[in-house]
Amino acid sequence: MKIAVIGSGMVGQTIASKLHALGHELSMGTRDVIETGKRTNKNQMTGQSFVDWKTANPEIELMNFKDIQINDLYVNATNGGASIEALNSIGKEKMKGKIILDIANPLDFSKGMPPSLSVCNTDSLAEQIQNAFPESHVVKSLNTMNCFIMMNPSIVPGEHNVFMSGNNDEAKKHVSNLLKEIGWIDSMIIDLGDITTARGTEMLLPIWLRLWGVIGNPNFNFHIAKK
Amino acid sequence: MKIAVIGSGMVGQTIASKLHALGHELSMGTRDVIETGKRTNKNQMTGQSFVDWKTANPEIELMNFKDIQINDLYVNATNGGASIEALNSIGKEKMKGKIILDIANPLDFSKGMPPSLSVCNTDSLAEQIQNAFPESHVVKSLNTMNCFIMMNPSIVPGEHNVFMSGNNDEAKKHVSNLLKEIGWIDSMIIDLGDITTARGTEMLLPIWLRLWGVIGNPNFNFHIAKK
Repeated sequence: MKIAVIGSGMVGQTIASKLHALGHELSMGTRDVIETGKRTNKNQMTGQSFVDWKTANPEIELMNFKDIQINDLYVNATNGGASIEALNSIGKEKMKGKIILDIANPLDFSKGMPPSLSVCNTDSLAEQIQNAFPESHVVKSLNTMNCFIMMNPSIVPGEHNVFMSGNNDEAKKHVSNLLKEIGWIDSMIIDLGDITTARGTEMLLPIWLRLWGVIGNPNFNFHIAKK
Repeated sequence: MKIAVIGSGMVGQTIASKLHALGHELSMGTRDVIETGKRTNKNQMTGQSFVDWKTANPEIELMNFKDIQINDLYVNATNGGASIEALNSIGKEKMKGKIILDIANPLDFSKGMPPSLSVCNTDSLAEQIQNAFPESHVVKSLNTMNCFIMMNPSIVPGEHNVFMSGNNDEAKKHVSNLLKEIGWIDSMIIDLGDITTARGTEMLLPIWLRLWGVIGNPNFNFHIAKK
């Protein structure tokens, strides 16, 4: 598939590298190519800067949002608060009929730590994106774990789950196939239903953040244990 | 322990029977003993009415909220929207220095199905109860699964989790011991921290309700899979 990762942080980098390694045609969108291209500060978790990452991934072209071309799938890996603006900068027309894989969470750090959600309960970021881009097919997935587990589920041994929400079954099929290429197996993928079910997965973030504190590292994931 | 279960529905019945069977001294609080005592309508899940339950559990005295005596622990098994009023009816003085084990969820059915939460994100029912009863020790637990799993975790095979939130370590120790009597093992009990962490567990309800729909039955539980 032709895939654009929107967002150039650690999450975007991790996803772009993995999908490129799987043989997809990748580009990456950022607000300002020149500024992003100067980032030499090391990420605390990876020890790698953007410049380090770009040097290791020369084939993934970095573009300003507006220069992103028509793709089959757009991964929204921006901060939740900046997602709609970033997607708008790409341009609605280019995303018409295409898939927006929304992995972002609407975290609000303005009220102190731990962050709360800027939208929840009766609405969700995924629904806001779907409403803003009604001719695109939003699929919410992967937002309930850290980006290393997203792209390598075997980090956590045994069964655990990835959730999917979206109105378009064909789009969810494509995302499901992509998840399986990454290493998720069928029984680990739970299709919750339409895009309103993303409220539930975004609302996992408050306990996720507390579990991170209790466990001491983010290498865990939700598993739905069944009878 | 001397335990009062506040609420006479299926959840309260299931909890009261189990804790009584474990040897605790149980009473049950309800709004109107006479009305509750007439309830012969069968519960859809258990096939049992309140009258059936009471006949099978003659030693558990049913009392109006106001007649509930001083107990070591009060289990809040009322609807979330009615919890504070019910606890107020018992009387603050009787609960001073005692444990309120809050297993309720603030579900709001007024906006249609599935229910949303009447409080979340920057507050929680557990915090509202703690604020209303500052001299009691509120421990939030067990609210993230159906009542049969609460009282018999072996319904779901393998590892899965029960969460605990509360400001008082001694009270959490008592609740933890009670959980172990019920059949929860140490590694399944996750102490998330203070009472504000109950926001996270109450916010599991939206995905829990959707999972019920997808799985087709409520016999599942959250498990935190770790590296």
